[in-house]
Amino acid sequence: MGRILMKGNEAIGEAAIRAGCLNYFAYPITPQSEIAEYLSWRMPEVGGVFLQGESEVAVGYMVFGAAGCGARVFTTSSSPGISLMSEAISYIAGAQCPAVFVNIMRGGPGLGGILPSQADYFQATKGGGHGDYRLLVMAPAGVQEAVEMVMKAFPLAEKYRNPVMILGDGLIGQMMEPVEFPDELKSEPSNKDDWATNGMETRKSSRRNLVKSLFLDSEQLEAHNRVLKAKYDRMRREEVRYESYNLDADYKALIVSYGTMSRVCRTAIDILKAEGFEVGMVRPQTLFPFPERAIEEAVRRKSCKVAVSIEMSMGQMVEDVERSVRGRCPVEWFGKAGGDVPIPEEIIDVIKSFVKELI
Amino acid sequence: MGRILMKGNEAIGEAAIRAGCLNYFAYPITPQSEIAEYLSWRMPEVGGVFLQGESEVAVGYMVFGAAGCGARVFTTSSSPGISLMSEAISYIAGAQCPAVFVNIMRGGPGLGGILPSQADYFQATKGGGHGDYRLLVMAPAGVQEAVEMVMKAFPLAEKYRNPVMILGDGLIGQMMEPVEFPDELKSEPSNKDDWATNGMETRKSSRRNLVKSLFLDSEQLEAHNRVLKAKYDRMRREEVRYESYNLDADYKALIVSYGTMSRVCRTAIDILKAEGFEVGMVRPQTLFPFPERAIEEAVRRKSCKVAVSIEMSMGQMVEDVERSVRGRCPVEWFGKAGGDVPIPEEIIDVIKSFVKELI
Amino acid sequence: MGRILMKGNEAIGEAAIRAGCLNYFAYPITPQSEIAEYLSWRMPEVGGVFLQGESEVAVGYMVFGAAGCGARVFTTSSSPGISLMSEAISYIAGAQCPAVFVNIMRGGPGLGGILPSQADYFQATKGGGHGDYRLLVMAPAGVQEAVEMVMKAFPLAEKYRNPVMILGDGLIGQMMEPVEFPDELKSEPSNKDDWATNGMETRKSSRRNLVKSLFLDSEQLEAHNRVLKAKYDRMRREEVRYESYNLDADYKALIVSYGTMSRVCRTAIDILKAEGFEVGMVRPQTLFPFPERAIEEAVRRKSCKVAVSIEMSMGQMVEDVERSVRGRCPVEWFGKAGGDVPIPEEIIDVIKSFVKELI
Amino acid sequence: MGRILMKGNEAIGEAAIRAGCLNYFAYPITPQSEIAEYLSWRMPEVGGVFLQGESEVAVGYMVFGAAGCGARVFTTSSSPGISLMSEAISYIAGAQCPAVFVNIMRGGPGLGGILPSQADYFQATKGGGHGDYRLLVMAPAGVQEAVEMVMKAFPLAEKYRNPVMILGDGLIGQMMEPVEFPDELKSEPSNKDDWATNGMETRKSSRRNLVKSLFLDSEQLEAHNRVLKAKYDRMRREEVRYESYNLDADYKALIVSYGTMSRVCRTAIDILKAEGFEVGMVRPQTLFPFPERAIEEAVRRKSCKVAVSIEMSMGQMVEDVERSVRGRCPVEWFGKAGGDVPIPEEIIDVIKSFVKELI
Repeated sequence: MGRILMKGNEAIGEAAIRAGCLNYFAYPITPQSEIAEYLSWRMPEVGGVFLQGESEVAVGYMVFGAAGCGARVFTTSSSPGISLMSEAISYIAGAQCPAVFVNIMRGGPGLGGILPSQADYFQATKGGGHGDYRLLVMAPAGVQEAVEMVMKAFPLAEKYRNPVMILGDGLIGQMMEPVEFPDELKSEPSNKDDWATNGMETRKSSRRNLVKSLFLDSEQLEAHNRVLKAKYDRMRREEVRYESYNLDADYKALIVSYGTMSRVCRTAIDILKAEGFEVGMVRPQTLFPFPERAIEEAVRRKSCKVAVSIEMSMGQMVEDVERSVRGRCPVEWFGKAGGDVPIPEEIIDVIKSFVKELI
Repeated sequence: MGRILMKGNEAIGEAAIRAGCLNYFAYPITPQSEIAEYLSWRMPEVGGVFLQGESEVAVGYMVFGAAGCGARVFTTSSSPGISLMSEAISYIAGAQCPAVFVNIMRGGPGLGGILPSQADYFQATKGGGHGDYRLLVMAPAGVQEAVEMVMKAFPLAEKYRNPVMILGDGLIGQMMEPVEFPDELKSEPSNKDDWATNGMETRKSSRRNLVKSLFLDSEQLEAHNRVLKAKYDRMRREEVRYESYNLDADYKALIVSYGTMSRVCRTAIDILKAEGFEVGMVRPQTLFPFPERAIEEAVRRKSCKVAVSIEMSMGQMVEDVERSVRGRCPVEWFGKAGGDVPIPEEIIDVIKSFVKELI
Repeated sequence: MGRILMKGNEAIGEAAIRAGCLNYFAYPITPQSEIAEYLSWRMPEVGGVFLQGESEVAVGYMVFGAAGCGARVFTTSSSPGISLMSEAISYIAGAQCPAVFVNIMRGGPGLGGILPSQADYFQATKGGGHGDYRLLVMAPAGVQEAVEMVMKAFPLAEKYRNPVMILGDGLIGQMMEPVEFPDELKSEPSNKDDWATNGMETRKSSRRNLVKSLFLDSEQLEAHNRVLKAKYDRMRREEVRYESYNLDADYKALIVSYGTMSRVCRTAIDILKAEGFEVGMVRPQTLFPFPERAIEEAVRRKSCKVAVSIEMSMGQMVEDVERSVRGRCPVEWFGKAGGDVPIPEEIIDVIKSFVKELI
Repeated sequence: MGRILMKGNEAIGEAAIRAGCLNYFAYPITPQSEIAEYLSWRMPEVGGVFLQGESEVAVGYMVFGAAGCGARVFTTSSSPGISLMSEAISYIAGAQCPAVFVNIMRGGPGLGGILPSQADYFQATKGGGHGDYRLLVMAPAGVQEAVEMVMKAFPLAEKYRNPVMILGDGLIGQMMEPVEFPDELKSEPSNKDDWATNGMETRKSSRRNLVKSLFLDSEQLEAHNRVLKAKYDRMRREEVRYESYNLDADYKALIVSYGTMSRVCRTAIDILKAEGFEVGMVRPQTLFPFPERAIEEAVRRKSCKVAVSIEMSMGQMVEDVERSVRGRCPVEWFGKAGGDVPIPEEIIDVIKSFVKELI
């Protein structure tokens, strides 16, 4: 099958199906309702289930239920809807179940607006829910990458028995781009007999599996949290993904940006390069684990005077950039949070002004 | 009135009343249900209202409703309950309403356990909900400080028209300590006529106030988020609170810890001092804004070889310590997350081992 | 205090207050929302509570909660809202708690319309909820009577420890009539210490009261149901209320009608009388207990050829008329169920045609 | 397929499947949870859906949703659960949608007990919900009849576009009896294209169907209610079902009883007959429409001195018996309502005492 032109939201839905996911629970919310619309007819076509919950709170627990049975399951929502799932996400992570969440972010806080935003960076990477857990968070910069990330998300969720979140924005969901789907995945997680509560009769072994996040005994809860921490540390070692841009040049500034925002930055870098003004970029593809080392190394280049976090939020990723830079150069932030995506000219002006200040 | 011996949870409830708060909405959850129990009879006694919601989701919006009318309002819960309030908290912050939240943290994630924990540091300081907002977060180390923080929380919430969160743990809630209550506050926020929807007839002016977080126009949402950011930047300048301990000595290590955890650290520091091994401590009293500068300055002391974040969580505050230290010395983490509070001997061993490694 | 002109809905609200009821829980629904509006400011004025529930299901259980504590409590709703309270009503009756319900009926079934109707006769008199219980049901024909019935409803509910329902229609709620309020009631049910769960400390005795409807043992449940039946039989003996009209004449037909419908019938009877055509009427003021004996006696008059149930419903009260008449004469039904109240001319034509048929 | 031994609850579930019903929504409640358990695995086996709702309120509206799309749908519950569905049932009847409800009654009111009961007779036959509507109500006396009634219920619901209710009790649900299933039904209601909202593309015609119960205009609502009344009158003419027992004898008393209660009465009649004491019985198989004429005719027999309504409730069906008897002989009631089914000896004593009184 070759490339086809698809809207981002529909491509995300189709990607889940190609990933062998037959369980989709959701509650509609702009700007991602097309995913639910698409899967409302596509899921039955492949023998899968789409169920609209009574609320996002209910959806979160439907996801938990299916995940606990070892079924491939995902949901999609937008910012306020994800907040309503916070408790369930913490439970799923605590019970070590695999599940895939897609957040097509809208402007916030509160009702906010329905235009593109990256304002849920903190919620996704630092845990909107309570307790010590982490989501593996991926941020696509286009429709093709969104498809690939969704399809990778399921095996990653199963490898770590942990929720994976795809963090997109309204542009990713609404734009049309040519897409080529990777090979389909097998429909069953490979290891689920070891932990999932899928009924005694369907398992070869005679184990009784128990899915839970309750550990009233302090030693058990401590041990449980050490198991979780070991997983998150392993993610930090094995799952960091990022893309470098123009890092061979002697750049004066390093941009860190992700998602659709990074595409504008790339254009700005190209324009600046034509002017003889070199700027490099690290684009995190995983937001947790964060490419700390790549950024730390990038700012070691002598020519680099400043690291700039460019985000469609009021200063969230910049904190991870600060941690990564470890004081090697100043860290600046530039962002917007109303729904208008900054244009290349704004980026160019900002970068120049930051560099100028430092000279 | 002199000092009286009170249980932490009850003292927190009484403090809200002394702060002139007559509206308390809550849903019971261990280990803070005594607050609801206490206020169930105490609120009516002072002409106030305690209403148990149908769920924490409902409670969050009851708080929003009262706050939007300009009434002093607070709620208390524990970790999973706070997750369920995430959406409402984002709405309240987005609509710029004052409200006070108390989170007596329990072990997590998921159901976890009911023993003391500090595992909701991220949720409180980085925003459990969606969108660009911040809570002003205070962490008491004892019952007296809890009382003072609760009583300060109301005027701070009103000054910034922003939710304030008190982050305690089960020990704070359950222990009994002598308490002296500060002078009572006036029962009415001073500025509420300017923004609250408290009914046309009761206001002197003829303004129509509107409480909302919806801004569909991108320029309006952008402007709104800049207003919010300006508030959070002002908090960073004006509201940082912390306590230093043994910073006059030539300490080899700097501990950063908060809440009840810091009391154990203090004992460990005293024991080590008796041995001639100097260790300093910065105890953040506000977690947002975080005492970044105080920590940065503290690690500049030549003798200081390492900064250690000691927390009853699996590595959350350590990220803010890393940001604050800005690469000036190594940053280490030590923590537990099962409900057992580390004892001084553990702290002593850990600090010594970190320092030893570095020599 | 003399007579004042009041809208029915507001007069009903005021009557509850004069009856010493300080607890009102409700969810707004046309055509009775003015009761909630009125009590939203009037209840606080007298130190009472108005709480809007999250739904009528919630309201039903708020009523149960307050009733179980021995507090005077009432709620008001309209047809679909009462359906949602069906389970709670059965629980309240089963647990023998006093409470007052007002149903300002709208057209049905389903969403129906918002115009006057008497279509919930069956629901009110035969029990919308499950199990063997009865409501004491009163049906006012005007605003003054609505006020009196509401004020009688509380002591009756307390006498029988059983829910009482006032069944009105949109006309009762919307029309304005001069009202004179009876003397106020004491604010406390007299017998509540014997059964209500109002807290050990506030009672003189040391009894532990238990409010429940669960009796898993068949003998206990049987005994419980016999107690309930004895109460309903006592109501049948002691609480039947009705009004006779023109029963001294040698009427050819007996009308049975209630509520606002009966006012139109009365006009029709007056017109017919002027023509020399005598028609009598029994107007049930209590629908349960139903004035069976009064009707049976009325149809014994030799001149009486037919009994006609005239109701704004499609044939509900007619069944109770049939039971009462016991075959002594034919029983006919006339009704409308769209919201238009029949006019006297329609009644006249109908009565004449029924009588004509029989001659 | 021959006879198989099955538990009543499971047989009811299987019957729905044989009737071509592929949609089952329910919330578990004793004493009928086995139906949900059975269908939880059986529905997927035949390509159907079992969905457990969040509450019975939700289930009622799931049923409405599926019914409105023209799908065969049913639900099962027990007394309090049916109360929670009252509003939805009224909506479904008002919108003229076919659906099948099974109520395996438990003792009431309120929580009551879990033993057999017939205490929801009024709720089923007089409408638990609001407004002018009727359910077609069938009451099986054994497992085989339950199966047949469930299978007839679907085409009847579709013929009348009205909810049908099967009223059983815990004995029907729990007992095992040999069952033979009738031929399977086609899986699709025949007339659904005329009214169901099943999507434009799947219909041959180009009609836009609208499923609703809202008629704000009084003339439209009146016309709508006349259409409904005409359906209920047609049911009264065409759908009355009952069984006679010993009506050829010169019986001194006529028993009216239904469901499992009637089986005990039959035994009592046999014992009495052996003594030379003749008693007849009419067993309503449909409770609405009620076999009024059959009963009226039966009491015309000269030997008949009394009609006795024997029911596991405190006097509900007796009212319909009174209406049917039309004063031709005395009507008595005997019943229990605790969960213990009366034994034949009790029936015998009661009948004898009633007859004795009259002589």
